[in-house]
Amino acid sequence: MVNFTFYAPTEIVFGRDTQKKVGVLLLKSHAKKVLFHYGGASIKKSGLYDQIAASLKASDIDFVELGGVKPNPRLSLVREGIALCRKEKVDFILAVGGGSVIDSAKAIAVGVCYDGDVWEVYEQHKPVEKALPVATVLTIPAAGSEMSGDSVVTNEEKQMKLGYGAPAIRPVFSIMNPEFFFTLPKNQIANGAADMMSHIFERYFTNTTSVELTDQLCEATLRVIMKNALLVIQDPSNYDAWCEVGFGGTVAHNGILGVGRVQDWACHGMEHELSAIYDVAHGAGLAVLTPAWMEYVYKENIPMFVQFAVNVMGVKGSYREPESIIKEGIARLREFFRKMGLPARLAELGIEEDKLELMAKKATGVAYGETESPLGGLKKLQWQDVLAIYKLAK
Amino acid sequence: MVNFTFYAPTEIVFGRDTQKKVGVLLLKSHAKKVLFHYGGASIKKSGLYDQIAASLKASDIDFVELGGVKPNPRLSLVREGIALCRKEKVDFILAVGGGSVIDSAKAIAVGVCYDGDVWEVYEQHKPVEKALPVATVLTIPAAGSEMSGDSVVTNEEKQMKLGYGAPAIRPVFSIMNPEFFFTLPKNQIANGAADMMSHIFERYFTNTTSVELTDQLCEATLRVIMKNALLVIQDPSNYDAWCEVGFGGTVAHNGILGVGRVQDWACHGMEHELSAIYDVAHGAGLAVLTPAWMEYVYKENIPMFVQFAVNVMGVKGSYREPESIIKEGIARLREFFRKMGLPARLAELGIEEDKLELMAKKATGVAYGETESPLGGLKKLQWQDVLAIYKLAK
Repeated sequence: MVNFTFYAPTEIVFGRDTQKKVGVLLLKSHAKKVLFHYGGASIKKSGLYDQIAASLKASDIDFVELGGVKPNPRLSLVREGIALCRKEKVDFILAVGGGSVIDSAKAIAVGVCYDGDVWEVYEQHKPVEKALPVATVLTIPAAGSEMSGDSVVTNEEKQMKLGYGAPAIRPVFSIMNPEFFFTLPKNQIANGAADMMSHIFERYFTNTTSVELTDQLCEATLRVIMKNALLVIQDPSNYDAWCEVGFGGTVAHNGILGVGRVQDWACHGMEHELSAIYDVAHGAGLAVLTPAWMEYVYKENIPMFVQFAVNVMGVKGSYREPESIIKEGIARLREFFRKMGLPARLAELGIEEDKLELMAKKATGVAYGETESPLGGLKKLQWQDVLAIYKLAK
Repeated sequence: MVNFTFYAPTEIVFGRDTQKKVGVLLLKSHAKKVLFHYGGASIKKSGLYDQIAASLKASDIDFVELGGVKPNPRLSLVREGIALCRKEKVDFILAVGGGSVIDSAKAIAVGVCYDGDVWEVYEQHKPVEKALPVATVLTIPAAGSEMSGDSVVTNEEKQMKLGYGAPAIRPVFSIMNPEFFFTLPKNQIANGAADMMSHIFERYFTNTTSVELTDQLCEATLRVIMKNALLVIQDPSNYDAWCEVGFGGTVAHNGILGVGRVQDWACHGMEHELSAIYDVAHGAGLAVLTPAWMEYVYKENIPMFVQFAVNVMGVKGSYREPESIIKEGIARLREFFRKMGLPARLAELGIEEDKLELMAKKATGVAYGETESPLGGLKKLQWQDVLAIYKLAK
C-alpha cells in the first residue's frame, strides 16, 4: 500500500422526499444568494424544478437560474455562469442534474473566485484554494461528481475536454432521491453504469500490492452495480435496485476505493478524446474502450486480471490456464455491456478511422508539440499504444 | 433501504512518516494553542512524543499537554482537561493515542464549549452545535474514533459508561502510520480486532432488506480484517497487514458500512455494562458476548445469518439445513477469537454471576427506575433477554 490522503467531506442526504430539504440544507450552509444551475426541460417535466424552487422560497433563499447545460458541459456556458454570478453577487451554486450540470457548476465556482479566464485553471492544472461552495441534487447517477472533487469541461473551440480536481470543489452536500431516476432513458442508464464501473476499474487495476481491502471493496461495488444496473434497465421504476446503483455510483468515485493504490485512468484519458471531437456520451465511449484496453494490457499483470475475472465476473476455470480465465472475464464484460444496450465498436459511435492517430496524439500530448505524457498506471501507454487500443476497438 | 445521511469529513493522512506532518496540518486548520492529549509512557518510549513536539515547534504552534488517559477514559480526567483548556485558552485538541485518548479529547472538546457539567451532555444526549476542533494521531487501531462522531466516557463514581455522538466531534484530520502499531502488546491487537469487527456486526445484522451494497462492503471489510489480524498477531511488524487492519478499522466505524440500514448495537450496550463495573477491555468483552448474542437471536433472521456464515466465515454446506450452516459460522467465529488469544467466557474476565441481573437491568435502563429501553435492532432485547445472553456467555 502506498501513502495516501482521503478526504470526502460531502454530506450525502439520500432517499425518498429528500429533495424537499434543499432549502433547509442551504440555510444551514449559510447560502444567501444561489445560482440554480440545471440542464433542460426534464426537471421541469418531473416537477423537481418546482419542488426545489418552493423549498428555496420556504427558506427565504434568493436565487437566479441558469439552465441549458448539455452533456460534455461547455466552456461557453461556464463563462456565462461566471459573469452571471459576479453580476448577481451569488455566494452559492446549486447544481440540479447529472454529472454535466455538477461539473459545469464546479467550473463556475472556480471561475468566480479566479482572477483570469477559468480555462487557464483547467489547462494548466492551477491549484485553487478558493471556489464558491457547490451543492447538488442528483438526477442522473453516473459521474460520481456529487461527492468528488473532480470536474470535466469541454472547450468547444479547441475541441478539448479537460479534467480538473481540487478539494475546494467537493460539494458541501448532495441530495439523492432515486425516484427521480425512474424517468431516465435506457441509454442514459446504461451510459451511467458504464461510467461508474470505469471509475472503479481505473482504481482497481493496479500493480500496487498489499491493497486487499480496497481490492475487495472495488469488487463488491462492481458486482452490486452490475447486478442492479440490469434490473433498472429492465424496470426503471425499481426503487430498491436504484438505491444500489445510485449510492454505488457515489462510492465508486468518492475516493475510498482508490486509497493507497497507484491508479490507472488510461481509459478516461482515451475516452475524453472521443467526446472532445465527436461529442459522444462518456459512458458509451468507456464501454467500447475498456474491454479493448483490457485485451491490450492484461499481460502486464496476469494475477490482477485473473482476480477480476473470478471475483467480479464469476468465471470458474482452471487457474493453470490463467489467460483463458481472463479472456472469459473480458468476454463476460462485453456481454454485460451488450445486455445494457451499449455499443461495442467505435464505428457504432461514428468515430472515423482517419481520426484515430490524431486522437492518440492528443491523448498523450504529442499533438500539441509537448513532451509525451503517457497514459495509465498499470501499463504506461505511448501514443502508439493508444492508437493500437483504438484500433482494437474500431 | 431506509433514508439516510452520510457525513464523514475527517481527512485521513495515512502511511509512513505521516506523523511528521502534524504541525503543518494543524497550521492549515488554523490551530493556535493546542492541548496535546495522550495516555502513558508508550508514546515517549516509541519516540512519537518527541516527533510530535518537534513538528509542533517547527510550525510555531504553542501547546500544553495532558497525559494519563486510561482505557475506558475517565470523566475525572475529562473535567481536568476542560479546566486546563479554559485556563490556557486552548483552541484545538490533538489526541495522540488510541480510542480512549481520542474519546477523552472529544469529551473535553464538548465540555469546553458547554455551559454546565459535561456529564449532562452524555447522560441526557444533549445536542451540541459547538465543540473545540479535534485532530488525532492514531497509535492503536480499534475504536474507529479517528473518523467517527462518537465517543464513550466512563463515570467512575456512578459506575456508568455512556456514549455520545455529534457531527461537531468528528476529527478534522487523523494521522495513521502503521509503523507505530508494531509495538502493541498482543492482547491489545486482539481486543482492537474484536472491536472493529463488532462495529461492522452492529451495522451488518439487520432486518432491513435491499441493502446489498453495504452487505457486501461489510463482508469484504470483515474478511480482510480477520485475515490480516491473524497475520499481525503472528508478526506485529508486518506493515502490509497492519495497513489492512488499520484502515479496515477506520472504514468499520466511519459510517459508510451502515448507511440505509436499521442498525443493532445490542452487543455494545451489553458490553458497556461489563466495562463500567469491571473495567474490562471493551474488545475482550465484545468477543465474549457476540457469539452468545448470535446464538440467542439468529432465529429472528435465518437468511441473514446464513449469509454471514457463508460470505464471511466461508462455511460450505447444504442450504437445506440453514441452522447447521449458521452454527458452523458461529463456531468458526469463536475459533477465530480463540486463535487471537481472546477470552470466550465472562468468567475469564472476572465477571461474577451475581452481578449479571444488575448489569442486564442497567443496560436497559430499568435499574434506574426508567421506562425500559430495549437493546438492539435485529431483535429487541428486554432485560430478561440480556440476562439470558449474559448467562449463555458466563
